[in-house]
Amino acid sequence: MKLEQIDTPAALIDVARMQRNIARMQAHMNTLGVAFRPHVKTTKCLDVVRAQIAAGARGITVSTLKEAEAFFAAGVDDILYAVSIAPSKLPRALALRRQGCKLKLVVDNPAAAAAIAAFGDQHGETFEVWIEVDTDGHRSGITPEQHTLLEVGRILHENGVTVGGVMTHAGSSYELNTPDALAALAEQERAGCVRAAQRLRDAGIACPAVSVGSTPTALAATQLEGVTEVRAGVYVLFDLVMHNVGVCALDDIALSVLATVIGHQPEKGWAILDAGWMAMSRDRGTSKQSHDYGYGVPCLLNGTPLTGYLLSGANQEHGILSPIDESAPTEDVTQHFPLGMKLRILPNHACATGAQFPEYHAVSPDGASVEWRRFHGW
Amino acid sequence: MKLEQIDTPAALIDVARMQRNIARMQAHMNTLGVAFRPHVKTTKCLDVVRAQIAAGARGITVSTLKEAEAFFAAGVDDILYAVSIAPSKLPRALALRRQGCKLKLVVDNPAAAAAIAAFGDQHGETFEVWIEVDTDGHRSGITPEQHTLLEVGRILHENGVTVGGVMTHAGSSYELNTPDALAALAEQERAGCVRAAQRLRDAGIACPAVSVGSTPTALAATQLEGVTEVRAGVYVLFDLVMHNVGVCALDDIALSVLATVIGHQPEKGWAILDAGWMAMSRDRGTSKQSHDYGYGVPCLLNGTPLTGYLLSGANQEHGILSPIDESAPTEDVTQHFPLGMKLRILPNHACATGAQFPEYHAVSPDGASVEWRRFHGW
Repeated sequence: MKLEQIDTPAALIDVARMQRNIARMQAHMNTLGVAFRPHVKTTKCLDVVRAQIAAGARGITVSTLKEAEAFFAAGVDDILYAVSIAPSKLPRALALRRQGCKLKLVVDNPAAAAAIAAFGDQHGETFEVWIEVDTDGHRSGITPEQHTLLEVGRILHENGVTVGGVMTHAGSSYELNTPDALAALAEQERAGCVRAAQRLRDAGIACPAVSVGSTPTALAATQLEGVTEVRAGVYVLFDLVMHNVGVCALDDIALSVLATVIGHQPEKGWAILDAGWMAMSRDRGTSKQSHDYGYGVPCLLNGTPLTGYLLSGANQEHGILSPIDESAPTEDVTQHFPLGMKLRILPNHACATGAQFPEYHAVSPDGASVEWRRFHGW
Repeated sequence: MKLEQIDTPAALIDVARMQRNIARMQAHMNTLGVAFRPHVKTTKCLDVVRAQIAAGARGITVSTLKEAEAFFAAGVDDILYAVSIAPSKLPRALALRRQGCKLKLVVDNPAAAAAIAAFGDQHGETFEVWIEVDTDGHRSGITPEQHTLLEVGRILHENGVTVGGVMTHAGSSYELNTPDALAALAEQERAGCVRAAQRLRDAGIACPAVSVGSTPTALAATQLEGVTEVRAGVYVLFDLVMHNVGVCALDDIALSVLATVIGHQPEKGWAILDAGWMAMSRDRGTSKQSHDYGYGVPCLLNGTPLTGYLLSGANQEHGILSPIDESAPTEDVTQHFPLGMKLRILPNHACATGAQFPEYHAVSPDGASVEWRRFHGW
């Protein structure tokens, strides 16, 4: 199907850009001498993940057990579930392990460690658990020097659970925007996670894997001594938030929302599109960054950004396209963006925008497209 | 299934609250002597819409043709598609009409009116079109005194299209928060839409329907002379944005997200939940209102709000539950919100939060629940 024939709104993946993003990250990981385990929460799409694995990825990271179940069913068996597990989800984890999935769980607290140990003992299953390390204070995890780290390690190790490694995610990297700051945080993430592994090993707990990553720190890292693998998700598509962080150009962004002009408010210089927040998502991640891109940056069908305009407002199924400089002499918006014209809108946050759609349309350089399904829910 | 057995995160509808919200709106419409056409974009769920129709609703409003197709297939045949139609969507509208759906289209510009007329002529179909009127300047529509109103009316009327009515949506009501301001906007919405109908009728165009509405103005209206029907969507579930607008109490909010405590940052007083923005949506609609509720208000399983706490932050699958008063003496959060504890989070925006889930769990007063499917995409 050609772009012009796709019903709008639709989520488009520019396949050439996606392949370039995959190749860039994998080459960087190869240079640093570490394995790469992509986070598939960004796309939840088998076609994308196959391309990541074909490029050299080893295993995947997931944010939900539904992702683990779907990708295991499709043949991916090395899976890190990177959210500290609720005890009530252990039966689903057990079912995956029993089917042969090399599922790794994550914990950051003694109660969850004890719950896994007790559940594994009850069901005769040796779970593999990685301990989450907090290297930047932004969310969850145990800081490298905390007593709790060894407490959790011992609860697992002494109760028949394999401590497979430590993992950390320096998510505060999304708040930075200079190469020096990103490189410094990448080193902080590396050093903290390696230190946590060392403390566990010093206590007699093997802890083979040392897993770090976020898209900005993965791309900024210059040496990863002691690290065995890196995780990143949004790099595969990129978005305006990552552009503001400074790790991609506008023309690296592989996700866009195809939209149609459905009306105008000529006096205001507005064109109204059929892509509102239901299509773009409510993510306004650029609102606190150096450039606020509203709900997105419009581009022509060939991908050329219309840098004088923004999707400045959104209702559920209406997007408002308006000039950035509202005082600029307004051309006739009904002529400039005529009814029925199609545009591609670059999104703030690829993970959030993708989730609004049941499928992507994967667009080749010749303009032909195929549907790539993604899944939804938990 | 009982609440405790539902996998988290999950979207819960409190059926008793929903029925109360439906009854309240329908009774108000009956008192005002107008028909009520609920906007089903909020829930996209047949079970909810059946309850609205059982209470007296006449026809439905939709925001996408997928909603129209799904509800028509389920037996609802009087459908207003309340977004100005892109010409490329006319074949889908035609298919619905040919199957017997009394589908009404909306336009607010001459080019779309001409496109419908030409397409109808080409296919021998008499489309019914309502003209969108702008009564508060917040988005799309033609203002009542504009010349374009009659221009669009004539293009339709003189080219074999039925002008079925006028419709307006005073969406700026979401920015208000006093009964007087809401009542004034309701009157502005009514008067503007009635005036537009009168101008069309004076020009010899019948225009039988006069359709107004948004949840706040529908509930605030005290007289609707000249109006034939009202539309509203979010009233059926309500949310924190509507609570800030002042049209519902916290205990009218019928949608909540069931979540589980998966960890803690004890020094910060945080509990970490398995409901992040993928579950709550990225909607931060209360951030510019009188009370900023973060990503939501936590409640006990029985619905009691924990008013000293907020879901203050969210990553994709992590929510941060923290005390509102960060300087307050912190009890031991690991005891207060122990691992595995389940909570219900009231959302900012029911339309956005519901869209994150493939199904609702409809919870009866006895705590039993059944699944109500909702649909996704366009």
